[in-house]
Amino acid sequence: MNLAKVMGTVVASQKEESLVGLRFLVLGIVDGNGKATGATVVAADAVGAGVGEMVLFASGSSARQTQATDKRPCDCVVMAIVDSWEIEGDEKYRKGDDE
Amino acid sequence: MNLAKVMGTVVASQKEESLVGLRFLVLGIVDGNGKATGATVVAADAVGAGVGEMVLFASGSSARQTQATDKRPCDCVVMAIVDSWEIEGDEKYRKGDDE
Amino acid sequence: MNLAKVMGTVVASQKEESLVGLRFLVLGIVDGNGKATGATVVAADAVGAGVGEMVLFASGSSARQTQATDKRPCDCVVMAIVDSWEIEGDEKYRKGDDE
Amino acid sequence: MNLAKVMGTVVASQKEESLVGLRFLVLGIVDGNGKATGATVVAADAVGAGVGEMVLFASGSSARQTQATDKRPCDCVVMAIVDSWEIEGDEKYRKGDDE
Amino acid sequence: MNLAKVMGTVVASQKEESLVGLRFLVLGIVDGNGKATGATVVAADAVGAGVGEMVLFASGSSARQTQATDKRPCDCVVMAIVDSWEIEGDEKYRKGDDE
Repeated sequence: MNLAKVMGTVVASQKEESLVGLRFLVLGIVDGNGKATGATVVAADAVGAGVGEMVLFASGSSARQTQATDKRPCDCVVMAIVDSWEIEGDEKYRKGDDE
Repeated sequence: MNLAKVMGTVVASQKEESLVGLRFLVLGIVDGNGKATGATVVAADAVGAGVGEMVLFASGSSARQTQATDKRPCDCVVMAIVDSWEIEGDEKYRKGDDE
Repeated sequence: MNLAKVMGTVVASQKEESLVGLRFLVLGIVDGNGKATGATVVAADAVGAGVGEMVLFASGSSARQTQATDKRPCDCVVMAIVDSWEIEGDEKYRKGDDE
Repeated sequence: MNLAKVMGTVVASQKEESLVGLRFLVLGIVDGNGKATGATVVAADAVGAGVGEMVLFASGSSARQTQATDKRPCDCVVMAIVDSWEIEGDEKYRKGDDE
Repeated sequence: MNLAKVMGTVVASQKEESLVGLRFLVLGIVDGNGKATGATVVAADAVGAGVGEMVLFASGSSARQTQATDKRPCDCVVMAIVDSWEIEGDEKYRKGDDE
């Protein structure tokens, strides 16, 4: 998994039928300090995450281990909204502090 | 998943029998601003995407979760054609605007 | 697998139900000399690893081959705590020496 | 999948028993213009590809979806020999032109 | 798969029970010319490879397709010891020549 900030949303009406109802989020991956790495990925949303929130996402076949994504052609899923994290005892992020 | 622009097509007559009938697209991966990252990948087409269109593609075992790719030696599939996306409320792409 | 140092922990109360009880660690990946590569990843903890410890982690579907992670949307797991390693006969790390 | 040029072959007599009979090719990955990216990978051959030919290869679990590689510890397979490809209507490669 | 040189070994006594008995090797990945790329990975040993030997390793779920690694949280396995390889007819490595 990795930490990422939800940057935006993707609309795609013409798609594999099994994907109908899934919400697609553009994620900006961040490092342990919460700094953007510059890499982006598109993930299905399994937890109701909003733009601006810090989240955890899982990739590969593990991204299909949620009810929303089971047996779908989806290789990335947001499966947790992050409250906070710390690095060597130093809090790097707390939800709400940057909002 | 990631965002990509369909750049071209690949013809390969000598192949695994299970691949007969699949259409192979060359994709140029783009970032959240729609700018080419320089990375390319070849994907099977599951939605009838055309050259120049923005699409979503899935990789790995998830790429086999479509009728077109089930149980085939295919690790990348275009499973949606993108209508639009936005980053922090700013629309970065809308289908038709660049055509 | 790869070698990494446990750098911190992530708290996420709003998550896929199957993830309740899992502990999430921020890992800093190191090279053969024990030097940080700068890359970070978030892993589930299957062995009770603590901040500062050197560990081995597995990625992808293999990360679900532990009791803690079976059938969960988890693509990275710490599955061993490293005692020591050597490169061409030269010991690069021994647990306790840096603590 | 990606495009690659077959650069050479690997001989390995001491191996997992299930791999006996597989032919291993060294591939040089190319971009959409057919230019070498510098990255190499070793793939099993499922289509009888020869050194110098342009091919398509699949990675990960998808590489086991051929008769030659089924249930084997093989994560990369050449599953098609490329005849030609074009980018935005411009033919970038045609088999035979460079031989 | 890729080519790598066995650089060292890792000792980890505290680990997932299913991993008991597996030998962990530190691999330095090499390119088609046998030159180190600088990337390292830790693999389980399925063929009795020794430090200094050139090997082939497989990653991902394919790394679990050996008797030693079946159903274990292991994403990388050495499944062949390389005798030799050649690039465009030029022998780049032969076992014994560098020992």
